[in-house]
Amino acid sequence: MTDYDTVSADVEHEEEIPEDHPRYQDLLTRHRIERGVEKGITHLQGMHAEGRGSAFDYLLGEETIPSADDAERAAAAHLLLADDPVLSINGNVAALVPGEMVELADATGADLEVNLFNRTPERIGAITAHLREHGAEDVKGLEADARIPNLDHQRAKVDEDGIHAADVVLVPLEDGDRAEALNEMDKTEIVIDLNPLSRSPQVADVPIVDNIIRAVPNMTEHANALTDAEEAELRTVVEEFDRERALEDAERRIRDGL
Amino acid sequence: MTDYDTVSADVEHEEEIPEDHPRYQDLLTRHRIERGVEKGITHLQGMHAEGRGSAFDYLLGEETIPSADDAERAAAAHLLLADDPVLSINGNVAALVPGEMVELADATGADLEVNLFNRTPERIGAITAHLREHGAEDVKGLEADARIPNLDHQRAKVDEDGIHAADVVLVPLEDGDRAEALNEMDKTEIVIDLNPLSRSPQVADVPIVDNIIRAVPNMTEHANALTDAEEAELRTVVEEFDRERALEDAERRIRDGL
Repeated sequence: MTDYDTVSADVEHEEEIPEDHPRYQDLLTRHRIERGVEKGITHLQGMHAEGRGSAFDYLLGEETIPSADDAERAAAAHLLLADDPVLSINGNVAALVPGEMVELADATGADLEVNLFNRTPERIGAITAHLREHGAEDVKGLEADARIPNLDHQRAKVDEDGIHAADVVLVPLEDGDRAEALNEMDKTEIVIDLNPLSRSPQVADVPIVDNIIRAVPNMTEHANALTDAEEAELRTVVEEFDRERALEDAERRIRDGL
Repeated sequence: MTDYDTVSADVEHEEEIPEDHPRYQDLLTRHRIERGVEKGITHLQGMHAEGRGSAFDYLLGEETIPSADDAERAAAAHLLLADDPVLSINGNVAALVPGEMVELADATGADLEVNLFNRTPERIGAITAHLREHGAEDVKGLEADARIPNLDHQRAKVDEDGIHAADVVLVPLEDGDRAEALNEMDKTEIVIDLNPLSRSPQVADVPIVDNIIRAVPNMTEHANALTDAEEAELRTVVEEFDRERALEDAERRIRDGL
């Protein structure tokens, strides 16, 4: 944290940020989210939410802790076992890990669906275009022909053949209301959130307490490593994951890491 | 935190945010900082920094802890004792507490000086105008005819008869480099920062670990209560404040409060 305010993320292209910089991940994250706001992908409040997350990441030690790695492996196994897996994309996810989400979708056979808290046609369009620039072919979320029960109208919109029908959903950086409503639909829900006490990881089947910028590529690596595994092996990975322990581990790390 | 993502700060005027809302302070803060970005007062990265601070505020319990109240009283006494006190204003300070800073300046006889990490003539102008809308008369920081030693050119700019000559400076939400350089100039430095471990509070004579939205009005209240005090009483207030204990208290609260 000490160096936080003294480094500027103010470069034109992210390639200009030196990879050996001690604050590389933080600089990259801030650069991408700022570009996301400028491109109309990310809501201004997303910049605030990202800052909030970065404080928890600082307290976690800015690394993937072992229990988060376990969660990422279990999440990969869930996605590989699923009949209809869907990866949900909001403005921060699109800004931070567009190419990484496309790779995870490819590695697991999942669909990508744009799903926004502050939904406007312009932002849906900007995000869809951004994902296509990063290699996405099909992007769901434009139909919005189904609703998640128990949510207000705008927030409930999903695709009938996307999130609505999915058996496993990855909802990174999701708000608590929607995470809870999705959970009540009896889906297997995977959440990425840096605050282990917030509602989304608390209700998730697989809570991943990690920075999305590390978590998504790591899930893809696990998926690639497990791609030829038998169903029984995948089920073992899923069953061995202990969500309570993962949440407790992350909380302990945040306390002790300070 | 659980309710964090489910409330929207998306109102036209801050008067529309109900004061009895359980997330009132957070909503007000996010609303003001978002308007600050829109008005060209606050840098986009300021939104990120504010989010980061809000996570620490959440861990602190979103209240002024007793040691922070002590720090705010000591800060008020320092400002009243000073010959040339200056309150430094950056983009986040201007967005969050413009009127409150003007009131603190009035209560303590301090000058206001605009002092930016990302300095442009447009932002200086927008912030000065914003402060004047909130009742400021004289605003320093436009001359920039002196330099803080040991800082790069842009970041070092201050007014000769402002921060450069000040004996007591309040630098809220200051970056570590500048906080350290100011400290080396042998000024009494008061810092407001929600992370007790970041460099600015670590080097400050009076580190205030509190949300600026609570800290500044509370400093004004203390200043008003102390305004008729004898110099000896003010010196006692200053001497009784224990900066180490205040930093330790805040750290303990952040750990235990989780």
